[in-house]
Amino acid sequence: MTKVGHSPLIAIHAGAGALTVKLTEHEAEIRTVLGEVLGSGRRLLEQGADAVDVVKAAVVIMEDYELFNAGRGSALCSDGSAQMSASVMRGSDRAAGGVAGVMHTKNPVLAAGAVLDSYQVLMIGEHAEEFARSQGAEQRPNDYFITARQQGNLSRHVEQYPAGTVGTVCVDASGTLAAATSTGGITGQPPGRVGDSPLIGAGNWADGRVAVSCTGDGELFIRAGVARTIAALVEQGSSLRDAADRALAEVTEFGGTGGLIVCGADGSVALPFTTEAMPRGVWSAGGEPQVWVTEAT
Amino acid sequence: MTKVGHSPLIAIHAGAGALTVKLTEHEAEIRTVLGEVLGSGRRLLEQGADAVDVVKAAVVIMEDYELFNAGRGSALCSDGSAQMSASVMRGSDRAAGGVAGVMHTKNPVLAAGAVLDSYQVLMIGEHAEEFARSQGAEQRPNDYFITARQQGNLSRHVEQYPAGTVGTVCVDASGTLAAATSTGGITGQPPGRVGDSPLIGAGNWADGRVAVSCTGDGELFIRAGVARTIAALVEQGSSLRDAADRALAEVTEFGGTGGLIVCGADGSVALPFTTEAMPRGVWSAGGEPQVWVTEAT
Repeated sequence: MTKVGHSPLIAIHAGAGALTVKLTEHEAEIRTVLGEVLGSGRRLLEQGADAVDVVKAAVVIMEDYELFNAGRGSALCSDGSAQMSASVMRGSDRAAGGVAGVMHTKNPVLAAGAVLDSYQVLMIGEHAEEFARSQGAEQRPNDYFITARQQGNLSRHVEQYPAGTVGTVCVDASGTLAAATSTGGITGQPPGRVGDSPLIGAGNWADGRVAVSCTGDGELFIRAGVARTIAALVEQGSSLRDAADRALAEVTEFGGTGGLIVCGADGSVALPFTTEAMPRGVWSAGGEPQVWVTEAT
Repeated sequence: MTKVGHSPLIAIHAGAGALTVKLTEHEAEIRTVLGEVLGSGRRLLEQGADAVDVVKAAVVIMEDYELFNAGRGSALCSDGSAQMSASVMRGSDRAAGGVAGVMHTKNPVLAAGAVLDSYQVLMIGEHAEEFARSQGAEQRPNDYFITARQQGNLSRHVEQYPAGTVGTVCVDASGTLAAATSTGGITGQPPGRVGDSPLIGAGNWADGRVAVSCTGDGELFIRAGVARTIAALVEQGSSLRDAADRALAEVTEFGGTGGLIVCGADGSVALPFTTEAMPRGVWSAGGEPQVWVTEAT
């Protein structure tokens, strides 16, 4: 049988973190949601959808799910507001879009997608939001994003982690790679603080070889330049796993933790993390969706 | 004679651009200003100042100089406002700070320096500015930054380039590297647009081997991940010049132009650009400051 086109693949994560009681409590539900996201991605990929549409669609589902720290259910800033960031990148031409500090766009990843479709690469604050709205992105009052669970986290000054930042990487049937990442940031963060998720090369990256989406101590992922470093190491001949481990080792050296998902144009994938848990999953052509939470991959 | 400590070095740029009549008109003045910035950096380095203080001080002078597109004299957004971005990074521990979308902080590089001294790495908009003010950074009405020259550029929808984004890289006597970059962005840019200058790994980077400051088509520098790519290539054994040329070649592939300055812990330096001009200069221990505008280095 002649192989036509590439073998599509999608991998997702819902944030690296500690093995908390809350995670154990919600683990079955989280596995179900991740399975649904992979199933939806699989259908789109089997229909021939392009990589950018697939990663956006997957992140939209995760943004809408309240237990993940992105879109509705985002972590709250010290002033009680939800300020969100997201990014999308396409590997074939390295078109990229990111937004930071959005407070009204229902799905921040779609605002990032609108930026990807423009000349700009990063837009911030109310102007990012005006632009997203002008491109058809649904808007909500900031209250829409704020859940009682996250208000509890803020008032107790703790993260009751069941899941965090979300992200997706994908290879479509044409062989194009894409990556998308979306986050509400850190509970109690100063308003105006931006982490690695919207930053191309820090928390998100796609080129002709790899697509990467990160989660963890955002400031340290920026200082390590995690996503771009992985791409550079793979370009130099490293395996995905070795490149990812080296980049995460820099975060560890800085005293931080986190994880990432990375897939290659050849269908390889690595899902490493240095925390106790990282809800994540993979579907690749010819197989069934697989989901993990605390187990090593 | 035993060599004590490292040989300090400072390199600066005032943006890559076209050889315009305005540049020719102001060339002598620009050379004088660059010479003064290098002289000031030299004095600080000879007094044993640390690398971060040196790059901040050099950028402050260039931000205050009206002909450079940073601080006072910044390019104006489509709505007539000045929105500025800056970043600073220290190589020894990779502490980093960036601000984007600031409109009142007299010297955006000092706001970035305040972020470097905090846990955060990137702060945006009014909250970045409140933070900078709380750390003692002088504030000005937005009008302070707006010059008749830049209003003319905006109304004519052209950049009358005599000089652009500014940046500095440095090795201090202890061998620590640092980089700082500051910009007003692009004439007529949408408010809320952010380029590569405040983004660690895109327009600015410092680690134990190299310090990099970029200028040019910001969106394309982000998509190429220029600064972090150079660091990764040097780590793999490339010379500064080869690494810089490869990273700039990616920007060229995307249809863009620009330049950068990079110095190594060993005292090497490269100042490549793909435009007609890039005002720039270098001083290293034991020598005299040298300044170039259109000449190759």
